[in-house]
Amino acid sequence: MYKAPVEEISFTLNHVIGLSGAIDAGRLGDLSQDLVDAILEEAGRFATNEMAPLGEAGDRQGARISDGVVTTPDGWANLYRNWREGGWNGLTGPEAYGGQNLPHMLNVAALEMWNSASMAFALAPTLTMGAIEALDKHGSDELKAIYLEKLVSGEWTGTMNLTEPHAGSDLGVLKTRAERRDDGTYRIFGQKIYITWGEHDAADNIIHLVLARLPDAPAGTRGISLFLVPKFLVNEDGSLGARNDVFCHSIEHKLGIHGSPTCTMIYGDGKFGEEKGAIGWLVGEENKGLACMFTMMNNARLAVGMQGVAIAEAATQKAIEYARERTQGKAPGWTGSGMSPIIEHPDVARMLLTMKALTQGSRAICYACAHAIDMAHHSEGDEAKAWGERAALLTPIAKSFATDAGVDVASLGIQVHGGMGFIEETGAARYLRDARIAPIYEGTNGIQAIDLVTRKLPLSGGGQVGGFIAELKEVAERVASSNKPAFGRTVEGLQAAISDLEAATEWLLKAQAEGRVAEALAGATPYQRLFGLVLTGVYLAKGALAPAEDGKGAHRMALCRFAVENLLPETGALNRQVVEGAASLEAARSVLA
Amino acid sequence: MYKAPVEEISFTLNHVIGLSGAIDAGRLGDLSQDLVDAILEEAGRFATNEMAPLGEAGDRQGARISDGVVTTPDGWANLYRNWREGGWNGLTGPEAYGGQNLPHMLNVAALEMWNSASMAFALAPTLTMGAIEALDKHGSDELKAIYLEKLVSGEWTGTMNLTEPHAGSDLGVLKTRAERRDDGTYRIFGQKIYITWGEHDAADNIIHLVLARLPDAPAGTRGISLFLVPKFLVNEDGSLGARNDVFCHSIEHKLGIHGSPTCTMIYGDGKFGEEKGAIGWLVGEENKGLACMFTMMNNARLAVGMQGVAIAEAATQKAIEYARERTQGKAPGWTGSGMSPIIEHPDVARMLLTMKALTQGSRAICYACAHAIDMAHHSEGDEAKAWGERAALLTPIAKSFATDAGVDVASLGIQVHGGMGFIEETGAARYLRDARIAPIYEGTNGIQAIDLVTRKLPLSGGGQVGGFIAELKEVAERVASSNKPAFGRTVEGLQAAISDLEAATEWLLKAQAEGRVAEALAGATPYQRLFGLVLTGVYLAKGALAPAEDGKGAHRMALCRFAVENLLPETGALNRQVVEGAASLEAARSVLA
Repeated sequence: MYKAPVEEISFTLNHVIGLSGAIDAGRLGDLSQDLVDAILEEAGRFATNEMAPLGEAGDRQGARISDGVVTTPDGWANLYRNWREGGWNGLTGPEAYGGQNLPHMLNVAALEMWNSASMAFALAPTLTMGAIEALDKHGSDELKAIYLEKLVSGEWTGTMNLTEPHAGSDLGVLKTRAERRDDGTYRIFGQKIYITWGEHDAADNIIHLVLARLPDAPAGTRGISLFLVPKFLVNEDGSLGARNDVFCHSIEHKLGIHGSPTCTMIYGDGKFGEEKGAIGWLVGEENKGLACMFTMMNNARLAVGMQGVAIAEAATQKAIEYARERTQGKAPGWTGSGMSPIIEHPDVARMLLTMKALTQGSRAICYACAHAIDMAHHSEGDEAKAWGERAALLTPIAKSFATDAGVDVASLGIQVHGGMGFIEETGAARYLRDARIAPIYEGTNGIQAIDLVTRKLPLSGGGQVGGFIAELKEVAERVASSNKPAFGRTVEGLQAAISDLEAATEWLLKAQAEGRVAEALAGATPYQRLFGLVLTGVYLAKGALAPAEDGKGAHRMALCRFAVENLLPETGALNRQVVEGAASLEAARSVLA
Repeated sequence: MYKAPVEEISFTLNHVIGLSGAIDAGRLGDLSQDLVDAILEEAGRFATNEMAPLGEAGDRQGARISDGVVTTPDGWANLYRNWREGGWNGLTGPEAYGGQNLPHMLNVAALEMWNSASMAFALAPTLTMGAIEALDKHGSDELKAIYLEKLVSGEWTGTMNLTEPHAGSDLGVLKTRAERRDDGTYRIFGQKIYITWGEHDAADNIIHLVLARLPDAPAGTRGISLFLVPKFLVNEDGSLGARNDVFCHSIEHKLGIHGSPTCTMIYGDGKFGEEKGAIGWLVGEENKGLACMFTMMNNARLAVGMQGVAIAEAATQKAIEYARERTQGKAPGWTGSGMSPIIEHPDVARMLLTMKALTQGSRAICYACAHAIDMAHHSEGDEAKAWGERAALLTPIAKSFATDAGVDVASLGIQVHGGMGFIEETGAARYLRDARIAPIYEGTNGIQAIDLVTRKLPLSGGGQVGGFIAELKEVAERVASSNKPAFGRTVEGLQAAISDLEAATEWLLKAQAEGRVAEALAGATPYQRLFGLVLTGVYLAKGALAPAEDGKGAHRMALCRFAVENLLPETGALNRQVVEGAASLEAARSVLA
């Protein structure tokens, strides 16, 4: 069973990404190291003891629907209440509405633990946090006054309603419509699909944020507005009033995250209320809904990246535990009596070390992204801009690399278990089933790659990515001057991989500057992976270079070396795909015709 | 819905692997091209029209058990009867018992189609074919007379009973015991797990081949004997008699292949019969059971490789179809009205071309393995030995590379579908669920890699693999002298990849010659993939060089170029893992302690 890796998380936050340094420098307000430690410890305890057992059982049972009423797995409504009463929902929420306004880094660390214990469960607060952020940034004072406190406490949950059957990645074509009413409200009509926790029994009210189009709106993405549509209308005294005209038509039968109800929501069908149409309130300005939604989506992308980290961590723990206990055959050099634990077989050790390296690499990338968000928030002027750009650059990499790692690590986890891995009761298969959605939702990883190449690389005229690469080189130099034989070929390996990243980056910027966008996009996905692999090596090296008060310095050096010598050589192939692959891809399109 | 790619299969058989050449040279008895064509066409028709629809429905329903009675999904028993009455079960079976004794190549081509339509269904005959082979090679005349005809016709099905809870990859420790009886029969006692189609309602009798240990047997794998244990005893007149003392205790709840009952079988519990103990007959000699089982397992490995090919083919078809129809956004250069089909987006095209290349590469590798088996069968002396070694060398690569490709391609297929891919009704997720077992059973891919490196590379003192690499180089040279610009950088790419293969091969042979077995095993899995990638490039090139009577020469050249320029660069990284990776893996073991 999953045990929250609090020490590892704490080490990564403090010594790889720089949380303790930022605290010491007074960069994060009055946050203290003691508070950080206490929060991580307590979150770990809750995730391990309370959430993980119900996560596993809930996957087996799944969410159910009957007559529009959605029931979450046994014990989940209670688990949710305990969880929010612990104050976990408001970790980063605005203080004015009862939140703790803590840094994002702490929240992603906590999110990791919730998602390891139960990704299906953790989706509920993940969506609520996005709604809080959108409402806090773009909502009117009146809307904030009515909704934020209950959302921050978690008494009510939030949802994001974007997708329609014909409008997934391309929101410009969505059809849900909003009509103005004289009292300043709107009436919403339409169907939304894939609405995570769109309906459930764990909270008293559900606050839907819904993208819709006004009758006179311009075509495309410039004609989309964002509306708040509560499941139950709220009376002036804050109590719950009538049911709004929105309901859950059905829930999806999915590959994974079975405990999370994925709903088709119908707005304005006349099922509830006197007048047809779900009553909604505008969030932000008319026709500026997409910008509001992007506020939610950027952080949601990082949160989805954390799902990848979380599944990778849980799958790795499970596989290592199994590989230590399961005996089979005799590994070379095995001198014990009887069969050796399979962890002794070099091939199994290779799988487990790959899992560990990908997990820790993705974790560091995601935490680094959260750190950049925090620093941008706590800086001003050019510094704030630079940190903001760093967060923007890291977001697609964090989302895609970590979610791909989640799938790959979960799949390796099954392989380590052998035949047992294919049996559902073992629990290893669940991780692959759950992990498989993360590279898809919140913008497919292909869309992240487009974002990375076309919008993030050109930030500050390429200066942001250039400065970042310079920082990566410094880490390689620090490894060189550390002069530790245990690093093996880490220096050359890091330098070669960073050179690949540099070459691919320059090529992509040049191609775009010359208008060869299709060529640049042909290499976007390999480039994104290349970037993630380099960061994995660099962050593992940073950890290995950090003071090892916990006595694990040798382990960290060994894992860094393993990753650099075994995983990073792929960057050469990826660079070639970026720089040379477009022509053959273009030529081969006829094959698909 | 899946449509059997008869033309592609036929082209690969005839022009990439050399079936038509072997027929023309009279190397395969009186087999005619017309018969080959007719068989492929009819198998394709049956797979497409009869099997595929029931495969999908059967996955949803799954196999069920009640009071030891296992029921396959609705329509499957009837489907099985139609299938065997079509004569498909006996394609390669011995003529003396009603089989058609056709080449293996034809059977693997047919197996591909059955598995694409329904891997869960196709498992039943796959196991039966293994049982036929073991019985034909090692069974007494009496056993053959009683059982072979019904097994060849498919009226009865066969199973392989190896695994026990503590004995998976390491069969030396199995505990199922066999006691001698005076009448020459044996009584079998024990529990076997993961028995595919161990109990079901689609055939009148089930013939179990069971590994067990005699009381006076030596320890380890030298003390294992193989027994035939029918579900129903067979009377002298061939009619079915009493139920034997074996039953299905439970079936597994698995990630995939839901229609295939995976059974826990209990032998000798006293549930049936007068005397406790399942009545069994020895196959082959006492204590030589493992050798008999290996007869089954080698061909079963190739058959499992075909499952990988089959799933990859079906997943690719489905993804291409979806990507042509689904519109979203505007791809660069898109001049059509409205949104472009997603197949126009470079990233989607990259995924689909990768899927196509891996599918066709794995197919060719598996067919080449089958061809080598056929040629060994139809040759004598040194030639037979060389072909036998070629088959032995290709078997682990075929099994592992194709099954890994099955998983990777199915996962990409989900990704192409976006959110729809995660919804079970779409059908894309089923391919990943089904594919995931294939890298595990019939010897995990890690065990295939051990076999490849320690037993196959040393064949003929390294001469077998050396000769094969020389053949691969010839293909690269033929590409060079074809002088076709459409090949792009294929020549350099192939040459570089073959050099990587050569370097890694030499290193592995040297390491083993010097007794550094652990180091060699550390790189076994990367080496296995390296070999498979090189073969993918080479076989795609062979196809592209073949006369293109079907007008698809340009497509084949373009796909070959895409694969060589985009997938094969990975060989450099893999070679480095083989040659340099062992030290860091060894150093990092402490991380796992």
